[in-house]
Amino acid sequence: MRAATIKDGGIVVAEHPDPEPGPGEVLVRVRAAGLNGADVLQRAGKYPAPPGHPQDIPGLEFAGEVVGLGPAAERFAVGDRVTGITGGGGQAELLKVHERQITPAPHGLDWAQAGGFSEVFTTAHDAIVTQAGLRPGERLLVHGAAGGVGTAGVQLGHAMGAHVTASVRNQELHNRVAALGADEVVFPELLESKEHDAAPFDVVLELVGAPNLGVNVRRLATGGRIVVIGVGAGPKGEINLFGLMSARGRLMASTLRARPLEEKAAAARRIEREVLPLVARGAITVPVAASYPLDEAAAAYDHFTGGGKLGKIVLTFD
Amino acid sequence: MRAATIKDGGIVVAEHPDPEPGPGEVLVRVRAAGLNGADVLQRAGKYPAPPGHPQDIPGLEFAGEVVGLGPAAERFAVGDRVTGITGGGGQAELLKVHERQITPAPHGLDWAQAGGFSEVFTTAHDAIVTQAGLRPGERLLVHGAAGGVGTAGVQLGHAMGAHVTASVRNQELHNRVAALGADEVVFPELLESKEHDAAPFDVVLELVGAPNLGVNVRRLATGGRIVVIGVGAGPKGEINLFGLMSARGRLMASTLRARPLEEKAAAARRIEREVLPLVARGAITVPVAASYPLDEAAAAYDHFTGGGKLGKIVLTFD
Repeated sequence: MRAATIKDGGIVVAEHPDPEPGPGEVLVRVRAAGLNGADVLQRAGKYPAPPGHPQDIPGLEFAGEVVGLGPAAERFAVGDRVTGITGGGGQAELLKVHERQITPAPHGLDWAQAGGFSEVFTTAHDAIVTQAGLRPGERLLVHGAAGGVGTAGVQLGHAMGAHVTASVRNQELHNRVAALGADEVVFPELLESKEHDAAPFDVVLELVGAPNLGVNVRRLATGGRIVVIGVGAGPKGEINLFGLMSARGRLMASTLRARPLEEKAAAARRIEREVLPLVARGAITVPVAASYPLDEAAAAYDHFTGGGKLGKIVLTFD
Repeated sequence: MRAATIKDGGIVVAEHPDPEPGPGEVLVRVRAAGLNGADVLQRAGKYPAPPGHPQDIPGLEFAGEVVGLGPAAERFAVGDRVTGITGGGGQAELLKVHERQITPAPHGLDWAQAGGFSEVFTTAHDAIVTQAGLRPGERLLVHGAAGGVGTAGVQLGHAMGAHVTASVRNQELHNRVAALGADEVVFPELLESKEHDAAPFDVVLELVGAPNLGVNVRRLATGGRIVVIGVGAGPKGEINLFGLMSARGRLMASTLRARPLEEKAAAARRIEREVLPLVARGAITVPVAASYPLDEAAAAYDHFTGGGKLGKIVLTFD
């Protein structure tokens, strides 16, 4: 099989042996696979894949058709359209993955959208629903709302009946984030100023990093929860514990990739139950900024790291 | 009635009007009332009592006998021995308090012990069980383990089947904390060093403050929870969010006093169900360092702030 392959800090297309599905695994012919920040870190040698996944093939999410079943695999049949997350290796023509970690492909999405669905929506749903326990009527703040997880978080929050404030640095993307369901789209600096005098936030989805810690704690409602998923702007910062005590608040931090099968399987069941129906009725969608055939994988990575876009960059496979 | 009374930053004994129990409230003749750090802050004018509580009478916990019932109060009868937390005013001969916020006095404790039971055990149980969800077999670290909440946390953790590491600065108290059920008692500095190479901690009860944030995150187990209840050593400090992400950890911070009745009532029900039985069978106790009659309230406060003790300082009432 052919796959996007990390070589000398760049991406090439190379031949690899076809994977063989093991017990409980299915073999998927990948039709589309989204790019994520973790792929770029892995390309730079800074984020090794977990054991059992190829070190040189990036890709944490995929959509495709089941073309083979390992021993005891029973949830899907050959020909089923599936989507899911994987610890790595998704940007390849073939992928083996445990059947409990994947879901049926969402109704209403084309292949490119389906290939860019699982990682960001599983991450966003796990963060704001499973961890932070967002409830209808609560106020959600999403920092870094124009990114992949950010756009997923804005849509999920809106679809769940929360009031969504989206913080977006790039003014050109403000209208497009508002169109995804944000009740207000603001520059990050506005939250620091007294001009923004809105009510405090019940849940903060932090996708930028430690520089936002101060404002997040100051603007936290009683019983509020801050969930940190991304720290691209810096991992270390000062926190005022007295402020967090006064709010009776919680700071949660997480990653998806390193979790064991049982946790990823539980997350996949929640996606099936709680998110696929929202996709099917058009309440949420997957914005795709661009899709590239596998042969242009290097260009896809350049586009991904270039910034200034809204929506996923996806590799497609014939 | 007479009560310990804040005057000019000190404590005197003064006369006050008898309180009248309102709807759902009981009138308690207080027999004993413990001192807590919040009383000292309030004495210094730094921690005003919540609305509905006297500003000049300290006291967050008490034990005594019901001597009157307000309209619709039905959980207790006159003569019942009760104990509980209050937003303030506990260090007085008479106290009115909502019946749902208190519990029967624990079997097996004398009045002084019962008067020093509720605040520290409710705080510790809420932190490590209700919030952090401590489970049998987990590893609990208690920072500031020789204090009131600390000794409660050590005992609760041990009684629940957790492995308890107690961090205590004063060497003279190490053996006494060990006798309360700590599996190991260490100096705080040891946790920073490579000499302490034990397994990471699932739950950290932080009673000291921000200076411990670094080691707490570094030593946190996957899925670990840090609960901050005290910040006497400083509220602000640096946190490594990447470290917290790697552990998929949570930092929780809380206070008990500011909570609404429904939350205090729920906490009191959990104390009845989960902690009073532990007291009744002798698995946990209330160490009392000294008790003072009301007339010596000022001396009690001096003793409390002096440090170097293990156990509660309690005011007693005839």
